[in-house]
Amino acid sequence: MPNYVVGHKVPDSDSICSAIALSYLKTELGEPTVPARLGELSPETMFILDRFGFEKPELKLSYAGESLYIVDHSDRVQGPDDIDDATILGIIDHHKLGDITTSTPLECWIRPVGCTNTIIKMMYDFEGIEIPKDIAGAMMMAILSDTVLFKSPTCTTADKKCVEALAEIAGIEDYQELGMDMFKVKSAVEGTPARDLVLRDFKDFNMKGQLVGIGQLEVIDLAMLDEMKDGLHADLQSLKEEGNRHSVILLLTDIMKEGSELLVVSDDTSVIEKAFDVTLTENRVWIDGILSRKKQVVPPLQDSFK
Amino acid sequence: MPNYVVGHKVPDSDSICSAIALSYLKTELGEPTVPARLGELSPETMFILDRFGFEKPELKLSYAGESLYIVDHSDRVQGPDDIDDATILGIIDHHKLGDITTSTPLECWIRPVGCTNTIIKMMYDFEGIEIPKDIAGAMMMAILSDTVLFKSPTCTTADKKCVEALAEIAGIEDYQELGMDMFKVKSAVEGTPARDLVLRDFKDFNMKGQLVGIGQLEVIDLAMLDEMKDGLHADLQSLKEEGNRHSVILLLTDIMKEGSELLVVSDDTSVIEKAFDVTLTENRVWIDGILSRKKQVVPPLQDSFK
Repeated sequence: MPNYVVGHKVPDSDSICSAIALSYLKTELGEPTVPARLGELSPETMFILDRFGFEKPELKLSYAGESLYIVDHSDRVQGPDDIDDATILGIIDHHKLGDITTSTPLECWIRPVGCTNTIIKMMYDFEGIEIPKDIAGAMMMAILSDTVLFKSPTCTTADKKCVEALAEIAGIEDYQELGMDMFKVKSAVEGTPARDLVLRDFKDFNMKGQLVGIGQLEVIDLAMLDEMKDGLHADLQSLKEEGNRHSVILLLTDIMKEGSELLVVSDDTSVIEKAFDVTLTENRVWIDGILSRKKQVVPPLQDSFK
Repeated sequence: MPNYVVGHKVPDSDSICSAIALSYLKTELGEPTVPARLGELSPETMFILDRFGFEKPELKLSYAGESLYIVDHSDRVQGPDDIDDATILGIIDHHKLGDITTSTPLECWIRPVGCTNTIIKMMYDFEGIEIPKDIAGAMMMAILSDTVLFKSPTCTTADKKCVEALAEIAGIEDYQELGMDMFKVKSAVEGTPARDLVLRDFKDFNMKGQLVGIGQLEVIDLAMLDEMKDGLHADLQSLKEEGNRHSVILLLTDIMKEGSELLVVSDDTSVIEKAFDVTLTENRVWIDGILSRKKQVVPPLQDSFK
């Protein structure tokens, strides 16, 4: 029976590419391991898999009785629902430390860098295993996605160096151009139902006992969302009620203007206004410089909920 | 203002030596960091510090407003009481993943090996920093202590290799002999009050909401404890009441016979009997092969509490 590697619910490119990269590494180290996923893939992730010739990882929601590695999260609400009945062999992540616990010792590689794949590259180097060309390409794309082409405040020197090393292994000359192609795919929102867009990159957080859902849509020009905003905002309300959430926030991020508009529905909008020191107008506000949910949205919200 | 490194309450040699070793590494990397401790040192740890010329780390119980690295634990009950008001920069540990969480990304090196110092050696190698002779000696002793001279089932190939490499750096020819000298110091219990012996290596665990304290006394011959057992057992009862604990267990470990006698006080001894598939007689039982609290005592207890 193989081990699994799985990322968070509503998988993004980092969750999928790190599952592929880590399962190859572990298998090479003599521990048969396969990548899995907890949900459907975004157009961005499909672009990466197609470009480097990978199949979609197995859709697998239940892990009772299995052994697995967790990548790109350490929060219970983001992982498999039956994780208590599984054995967690390790966690590779670049977020705050969440509330997953284990009853046996494990392997954790958690670093304050821009992308899980940057850490997995360190693991390959540590173990002295060569990264295959196609895997290097997928890892590189995940880092470009997570760091928004190095523009995100989460981006570190380690991420940049890692992209350069991976680009060389993958034989890619202009990684910025390929990254921009990826963000164009990501920006193609026309004709997509509001719910699909909201859930494309959506994570729940437990903030002092309150469930807070935060989605993010990154586009190369916010103007392309103008006609969809009302529909998106209405859908947040439904999502809040369906999940008994305290708040749902959608970040509409303009990666060229380097800022985000927040669409908010909340039982108490003052908690959100306090977190960012802003005043919402019709439950919306543009904030310059906000590109990172992890570094610029979750920590102030968490403090505000205290 | 420097950063701190601190191990768990009732510090053992691994907590102290890893605080010393990690603070040197971080300082060398340009991040001024000092070692600290949450309590008094055992004769074993004093033996190590004297042998390699170290002062006791600063006794520091409060970390509000400070930034710190946590070593040798990730359970809230084992760390500083005001950890919620501190910034956790990282966790280096070799136990199960506990319930400490953070609101910002951090650096975690957690591995299923026998000792935190084995992981810190990996960190030195990863960063390319040379380990000073005296620090190598202290790290080596901590590994010999935690792995019970390699006899513990927690001991891995990585721990053994690490001791050999550290012994060479420290210029120690017979590390087994030095390790045995350390265990002789550890075994010197005569004239020590029962409470001091019980607390010498004592950890609290949160098991499904119940507080369970588990102490361990390692000696080279269990017979030397014969006349003290009743006094020790009586003290466990007091300790249970003082801390509102569900259970207190003391492991009397004979490192030569390679097994442990469990002294138990509990609101429900059947949970403990079930965990180890044994029958207590006068709330005591000898179990062959039990040397490791972490690997052989905590996991079955945790399962039994589920």
